[in-house]
Amino acid sequence: MRLTAFAIVVLGSRFCLAQDAGDFKPATSNVLDAQYPRVDGNSRVEIRFKAPDAAKVRVNFWSGPKADMVKQADGFWTFTTPPMAPGLHYYTVIVDGAEVADPASSAYFGGSKWASAVEVPETGATYYLPQDVPHGQVREVWYHSKVTGTWRHALVYTPPGYDTQVRDRFPVLYLQHGGGEDESGWTRQGRANFILDNLIASKRAKPMIVVMANGYARRAGQSVADLRGKPFGSPEMRKAMQDMMTAFEEDVTQALIPFIDSNFRTLTGRDNRAMAGLSMGGMQTFHVTFNHLDLFSYIGGFSGAANAFAPGNAALDTKTAFNGAMADPAAFAKRVHLLWIGVGTKEPEGMRQGIQRLHASLEAAKVQHVYSESPGTDHEWQTWRRNLEDFAPRLFQAVAKK
Amino acid sequence: MRLTAFAIVVLGSRFCLAQDAGDFKPATSNVLDAQYPRVDGNSRVEIRFKAPDAAKVRVNFWSGPKADMVKQADGFWTFTTPPMAPGLHYYTVIVDGAEVADPASSAYFGGSKWASAVEVPETGATYYLPQDVPHGQVREVWYHSKVTGTWRHALVYTPPGYDTQVRDRFPVLYLQHGGGEDESGWTRQGRANFILDNLIASKRAKPMIVVMANGYARRAGQSVADLRGKPFGSPEMRKAMQDMMTAFEEDVTQALIPFIDSNFRTLTGRDNRAMAGLSMGGMQTFHVTFNHLDLFSYIGGFSGAANAFAPGNAALDTKTAFNGAMADPAAFAKRVHLLWIGVGTKEPEGMRQGIQRLHASLEAAKVQHVYSESPGTDHEWQTWRRNLEDFAPRLFQAVAKK
Repeated sequence: MRLTAFAIVVLGSRFCLAQDAGDFKPATSNVLDAQYPRVDGNSRVEIRFKAPDAAKVRVNFWSGPKADMVKQADGFWTFTTPPMAPGLHYYTVIVDGAEVADPASSAYFGGSKWASAVEVPETGATYYLPQDVPHGQVREVWYHSKVTGTWRHALVYTPPGYDTQVRDRFPVLYLQHGGGEDESGWTRQGRANFILDNLIASKRAKPMIVVMANGYARRAGQSVADLRGKPFGSPEMRKAMQDMMTAFEEDVTQALIPFIDSNFRTLTGRDNRAMAGLSMGGMQTFHVTFNHLDLFSYIGGFSGAANAFAPGNAALDTKTAFNGAMADPAAFAKRVHLLWIGVGTKEPEGMRQGIQRLHASLEAAKVQHVYSESPGTDHEWQTWRRNLEDFAPRLFQAVAKK
Repeated sequence: MRLTAFAIVVLGSRFCLAQDAGDFKPATSNVLDAQYPRVDGNSRVEIRFKAPDAAKVRVNFWSGPKADMVKQADGFWTFTTPPMAPGLHYYTVIVDGAEVADPASSAYFGGSKWASAVEVPETGATYYLPQDVPHGQVREVWYHSKVTGTWRHALVYTPPGYDTQVRDRFPVLYLQHGGGEDESGWTRQGRANFILDNLIASKRAKPMIVVMANGYARRAGQSVADLRGKPFGSPEMRKAMQDMMTAFEEDVTQALIPFIDSNFRTLTGRDNRAMAGLSMGGMQTFHVTFNHLDLFSYIGGFSGAANAFAPGNAALDTKTAFNGAMADPAAFAKRVHLLWIGVGTKEPEGMRQGIQRLHASLEAAKVQHVYSESPGTDHEWQTWRRNLEDFAPRLFQAVAKK
């Protein structure tokens, strides 16, 4: 008996060592020198959070476990997830009812607040990492918008060589974040700048300017209350979203594009202008581009369905939608060089089905488009990084082909 | 009696209305649409934090009140400060022992984590606000440092006109954050870009490039443990700080300056190069510039004493310090165009006295310098905004005068 018990203890502790100590390493999304969160070779994430006097601490991964953390003797609470999908996972910690960010994590703007996230590396994938290739710059700019009556902040990626090839002009991709995020999302979370650097270095994508604006716009004088406290899905909320959508449309077309074209060496005209966005930014992209096909000829919706806000989430009527822009598929294919839609296979069913229904509607009507599924990823940034990596090489090729 | 009691209640409630409801407005440092923290015309700050199940919630202003918040019936905890000094005040909230950021605030990197802050406006001061003047850009750049063996992130302010005046070259100010902060501090917290925009528009400062690097550097292969867990003020900690300081010095002089000079249209040479920093960044500035007077001729220390890390915090021996660079004051004044030191009058006594002692040492030795006190401000960003606004107009004037 004693021997058996001893053997169990030894075997048990070895098993624990293999499984728990394993090869955990601090996540690259941590603040300097923070040892937690950490990730092991099986993509499991261990969170550790100090709350010595709390009665209950929960971890809340937005697309992952929502679970009670376990109090340790040292006042820290810990939790280890099952293996996670690769990519950047937003999370918060709930301390006795207070939902807060984990101070060990870098801050990422999501859910309308500065939240935490943990980066789970994708084995073998280097396309979104900084590499020894020429790097573009990400520039903060402020433009005054007569639409909103405010100074607005945007980020602009300029490709390598922009400063030295002073006679060259570049096409422009307008790239939008999702709901609850802001203009920092595509570089901080999405690493769009590194994706573009790597695509341009390997000559898979043309050098381009990428403009990342804030998708929340409110007409001058419009009160905050108009956009707050509306029940989700209610007619009032739909109206508020529409107001924001049209204010954003006007801000992009009347303030942002003129500002970019007069402050950067852009190639102008619809053949040199693309727009894409994720989730809410995808909806905004469809809204802005289809209403301004005089300005845009490349369109991308990343996990963002054109009809998500249509009553009943019905199939898209391609004959009548967007004032009949797609009614004649042959004419549409000539006019719109690229219509790209994509979704992750692990996204919530409602979101996935919305995009799949859109894809089916376009197929049935023979509207030329590209449809892409990201295997094993959720309504999160790894889906959108992959989307951008597939989308960007298809841009601004039409003119060259002519 | 009853009438008197009634009058007191009425008067009391009117008084409360005037004092409590008053003219509180959401702070400009809040995330979009957050109604708290809010600030009134007397610079009082009201914090509101949701923690329905917490037993104790404290607010922790780093240079202000540290106090218990009061639980309200709706699960929110509130606290109103006495009148605060103008400027950006870092704070955290402590929920049952967990020190966290307030999700209603924008995130600012300070104290080695993403913390909260509230902006208390300075009446009548517009020098650090965005105005209707030409705006420069703040550019994110990544440079590979052989010193640290890593990709390093820096922010670079380019003045208005940089992109259009393609034959012009510009002098460079290297501008460093404080301890526990990072390269984002000078623009996010300090609004250095707006300060420069406004100074340049009014022709008070010359158009210049401003480089903001991360002050934490660690030589390639140096382990994390070397810089952690050392008792404050101990010889081990001093050694770790020295290692970091010299690694940073090498990173600046061997990696950063060459990168900037080859990627931006800089005016090179010591007459066109300045360095300044706040607190820890001030110490780093003295260390880097005095060891490289071949590279720099303008030097600024904002709340950062040259001798803070000297044993016993003694007065500076100007004859021997920095290899005798100041030993001959006349020669020094000819060589160094500007030595600028400043401090806020409300800074903790130890910090204030350190700078005042440095000033006295320089005075006694007749070492030419500028000394500035910021009235009523603490070891916080309003001091450093004012410092930059006084410092920048003095830069790069020497050559023109010749």
